[in-house]
Amino acid sequence: MTLRPLLCIRIDDDTMLRIYEERHAQEVAELVDQNRAYLRQWLPWVDDSRTVEDSKAFIRSSLQQFAQNEGFQTGIWYRDTLAGGIGYHQLDWVDRKVEIGYWLSEAFQGKGLMTKACRTLIIYAFTELGLNRVEIHCAAENIRSCAIPKRLGFTQEGILRDSQWLYDRYVNMVIYGLLAREWQG
Amino acid sequence: MTLRPLLCIRIDDDTMLRIYEERHAQEVAELVDQNRAYLRQWLPWVDDSRTVEDSKAFIRSSLQQFAQNEGFQTGIWYRDTLAGGIGYHQLDWVDRKVEIGYWLSEAFQGKGLMTKACRTLIIYAFTELGLNRVEIHCAAENIRSCAIPKRLGFTQEGILRDSQWLYDRYVNMVIYGLLAREWQG
Amino acid sequence: MTLRPLLCIRIDDDTMLRIYEERHAQEVAELVDQNRAYLRQWLPWVDDSRTVEDSKAFIRSSLQQFAQNEGFQTGIWYRDTLAGGIGYHQLDWVDRKVEIGYWLSEAFQGKGLMTKACRTLIIYAFTELGLNRVEIHCAAENIRSCAIPKRLGFTQEGILRDSQWLYDRYVNMVIYGLLAREWQG
Amino acid sequence: MTLRPLLCIRIDDDTMLRIYEERHAQEVAELVDQNRAYLRQWLPWVDDSRTVEDSKAFIRSSLQQFAQNEGFQTGIWYRDTLAGGIGYHQLDWVDRKVEIGYWLSEAFQGKGLMTKACRTLIIYAFTELGLNRVEIHCAAENIRSCAIPKRLGFTQEGILRDSQWLYDRYVNMVIYGLLAREWQG
Amino acid sequence: MTLRPLLCIRIDDDTMLRIYEERHAQEVAELVDQNRAYLRQWLPWVDDSRTVEDSKAFIRSSLQQFAQNEGFQTGIWYRDTLAGGIGYHQLDWVDRKVEIGYWLSEAFQGKGLMTKACRTLIIYAFTELGLNRVEIHCAAENIRSCAIPKRLGFTQEGILRDSQWLYDRYVNMVIYGLLAREWQG
Amino acid sequence: MTLRPLLCIRIDDDTMLRIYEERHAQEVAELVDQNRAYLRQWLPWVDDSRTVEDSKAFIRSSLQQFAQNEGFQTGIWYRDTLAGGIGYHQLDWVDRKVEIGYWLSEAFQGKGLMTKACRTLIIYAFTELGLNRVEIHCAAENIRSCAIPKRLGFTQEGILRDSQWLYDRYVNMVIYGLLAREWQG
Repeated sequence: MTLRPLLCIRIDDDTMLRIYEERHAQEVAELVDQNRAYLRQWLPWVDDSRTVEDSKAFIRSSLQQFAQNEGFQTGIWYRDTLAGGIGYHQLDWVDRKVEIGYWLSEAFQGKGLMTKACRTLIIYAFTELGLNRVEIHCAAENIRSCAIPKRLGFTQEGILRDSQWLYDRYVNMVIYGLLAREWQG
Repeated sequence: MTLRPLLCIRIDDDTMLRIYEERHAQEVAELVDQNRAYLRQWLPWVDDSRTVEDSKAFIRSSLQQFAQNEGFQTGIWYRDTLAGGIGYHQLDWVDRKVEIGYWLSEAFQGKGLMTKACRTLIIYAFTELGLNRVEIHCAAENIRSCAIPKRLGFTQEGILRDSQWLYDRYVNMVIYGLLAREWQG
Repeated sequence: MTLRPLLCIRIDDDTMLRIYEERHAQEVAELVDQNRAYLRQWLPWVDDSRTVEDSKAFIRSSLQQFAQNEGFQTGIWYRDTLAGGIGYHQLDWVDRKVEIGYWLSEAFQGKGLMTKACRTLIIYAFTELGLNRVEIHCAAENIRSCAIPKRLGFTQEGILRDSQWLYDRYVNMVIYGLLAREWQG
Repeated sequence: MTLRPLLCIRIDDDTMLRIYEERHAQEVAELVDQNRAYLRQWLPWVDDSRTVEDSKAFIRSSLQQFAQNEGFQTGIWYRDTLAGGIGYHQLDWVDRKVEIGYWLSEAFQGKGLMTKACRTLIIYAFTELGLNRVEIHCAAENIRSCAIPKRLGFTQEGILRDSQWLYDRYVNMVIYGLLAREWQG
Repeated sequence: MTLRPLLCIRIDDDTMLRIYEERHAQEVAELVDQNRAYLRQWLPWVDDSRTVEDSKAFIRSSLQQFAQNEGFQTGIWYRDTLAGGIGYHQLDWVDRKVEIGYWLSEAFQGKGLMTKACRTLIIYAFTELGLNRVEIHCAAENIRSCAIPKRLGFTQEGILRDSQWLYDRYVNMVIYGLLAREWQG
Repeated sequence: MTLRPLLCIRIDDDTMLRIYEERHAQEVAELVDQNRAYLRQWLPWVDDSRTVEDSKAFIRSSLQQFAQNEGFQTGIWYRDTLAGGIGYHQLDWVDRKVEIGYWLSEAFQGKGLMTKACRTLIIYAFTELGLNRVEIHCAAENIRSCAIPKRLGFTQEGILRDSQWLYDRYVNMVIYGLLAREWQG
């Protein structure tokens, strides 16, 4: 891990979450492009993210989300390399709940990276932001993605049928929920 | 029913849905005020709606929603009197789905008004807007509200725990879903 | 007339006015295109309305007008087919007056459609909106258009010379006015 | 007349038109206040202009008008004292026409100031802005105001009945028009 | 000098400063284009000003600056021909100071035009705007530009190293300052 | 130092810089209030920062700065307590330079905190942001503040006279500059 100063949420010596800034657009665009077929299996936004300019537009809108106190989007960095992304969907301060969304490039699968990243944003949500509820939504057939909330102790609360359009078909989405009182570090 | 020209979705000789405009703010504010204790049992926005100015602000933002092609909010009018409200939450054109929300003042309960209004917006969503999925969210203990989607053939798809803050406690929300292919007029 | 729910001002069994929404852009663009030479005789906006995207831009700005409580624009629908357009120019709430503008495709001329549509928006202006004065402006040589306000009892109040640029020449505009106290249904 | 540099349209040694800037708000507010009863006879905006902050808001919006290339508002300065105001209503570049509006405090009446100021903005409209038509609208009974366009060679083109709300009644407005080809310096 | 009415700060019979308006864009673009190589020696914005549309964009943003009470940009006109530009950078009302920036086309050098224009904006800043301090920043090696503040009695207050990127290298910028109490007309 | 996840630039085990978010407003407001007389000696913004709402407004605007890629503002946290603030003034990407501004509450003086914080943002500017020049501006008589850039190897490049209004008088500002090529970790 470098010693240079970085704006980040540090997870361990190898891993950190960095809020996306415009200068990351190139790396984001390249990582998405290298994993296009892989990510496209379950993520509906991949076809809309083709150029560095697309990544910049996404980053700008996610910085606006942060500036408006509605959550933030980060890159997952492993040993100074971008490995994927994780962030909060629009924060609901009234109901004190938030949904976490994430993706990981194929080469970084199998290291427990996403479980660590997700746990970090859960702790951050409950302790730093004082929220009461965290949600994760996964396509019902996306086994790998569903494994994350199960491993972290979420409860499956429902399956919304035809809830997301995935390029050529509707998929059912499983809603997982975790409450602050259920979490023990 | 008057013969004067009105911008509305006509349901039957007695009932219509009118997009809220600023000149309705007085009637909306009065109806909410008269039903404050009744509505406050299950609706989280009642305490934020105290003055005619509050109603105007709500109407202005709902007209913006309409202008941005994200759905609309209407008053339910029965024999030229405002009886309640029904509308689409922010339309999701990508996934072709929408949530319907509604409320009815106490005096108009028991006439089947809300079932009619809700059926109208369901047909409108499937035929006029070409959507694939309609959702209704109700607090689990709000028997009267849950009865509407049940009566209209919705499927209960899940119960999200602690999902809404209701003044002094969290309540569980039931998600009901109805798909275009399940609807038969 | 279909029985499906529609957001409209109903005129009679065959005719209604529907606030333009984005999904009407295709039909608007086609109707304008089919009547281009015909409409261009007297309407200055025809050359700026060439593509579906142009129609969408017009519709978006007219929905903003509605959202800001400054009047609205509608399509005239005859037996489920778009026949033309009519609407209020920017409403003047201080002086309680408004100008009505309209156009009709060639194929729908001669049915009294525009007189009906115009009468409807006049009644709506006086009764629903509580206005005191309605204006119609027509190019002095546009006989067909001038016939509408004359038939509906408007007073000719002036002729503004060189008041509108019509592609290659200035035309004189006749101002017709009608006051609430002069109207008897 | 001072020799200090000023941003203005100079009329003669005693008289100039200065685009309003925020630092003029105090003088504008005072002049309106001293002439409140006098101006209120024919100007509908006087009751909305009570404080220096009101004048600032007017000045800010008139600077926005200038920045958007839609005309401008000026103070009429006579021997370094503010005497009244004159400006262009929203410029119509398509039809190449504009309306001129003006007011003068009572103490400066009778010097021909307004005729000079008005003539200046007419020349400016025809020569500098390249417009084709200038309009002046006056309440029909406002003899003094109607005298200006008559003296400057305008044609009376119509009388719009009940066209302006003046605190407690509607007044008829006379429309005067002058075309570029009619003007001879 | 023409006698036609113009919105300007008059300097002498031959020279005036006119706030840029959109209709000047053509002349600005042509003058910059004719002097491209000459101006590019010391001005960093020349490569970004290539088309009439670029000039319009600059003019629009400078009119916004004026509308927000943050200073203005003018063209220097000599015998009805555009010769260069001069204006205030964003005005600092709290510290009551402003920076003046300027450029002159090659053909108009040597007439003392810029010294006159600069003196005019200095007087305007101290007397009309009531400022306390005026700054001029010049690249250290730009002898001709540095001569202006020296001639007008400014004090050299510092040299900021590598302070401006000039296409292919950093240049040092000299800061010249002049205080209201040092100025004697 | 806690182990909880935090979005920050970590300096050492005791010290970190955290981008201000709305939930810090209370702590910022309190710290400013406790140090009001102390900070007011040299900082011009203290009188405008009186309430928690003032701090929120500052935080919102600084998050906008961050979202627009123009730099950011952070709180200096020492052992989980807010000690002061440091940040970048509006970043100049064209000239690749930035000014750093800072303040420290009285109780935290003398620990070398500000030198560390400042060094961190300098490294961040040169390595992470790739800038070429960092500036620090201090009132000439503010000995303590001037000591920071001197200690960190900045060059004094000029003294701008009367350059800042400090409640009741103008103060001279020293400009210190440091170039990327002069920095050696």
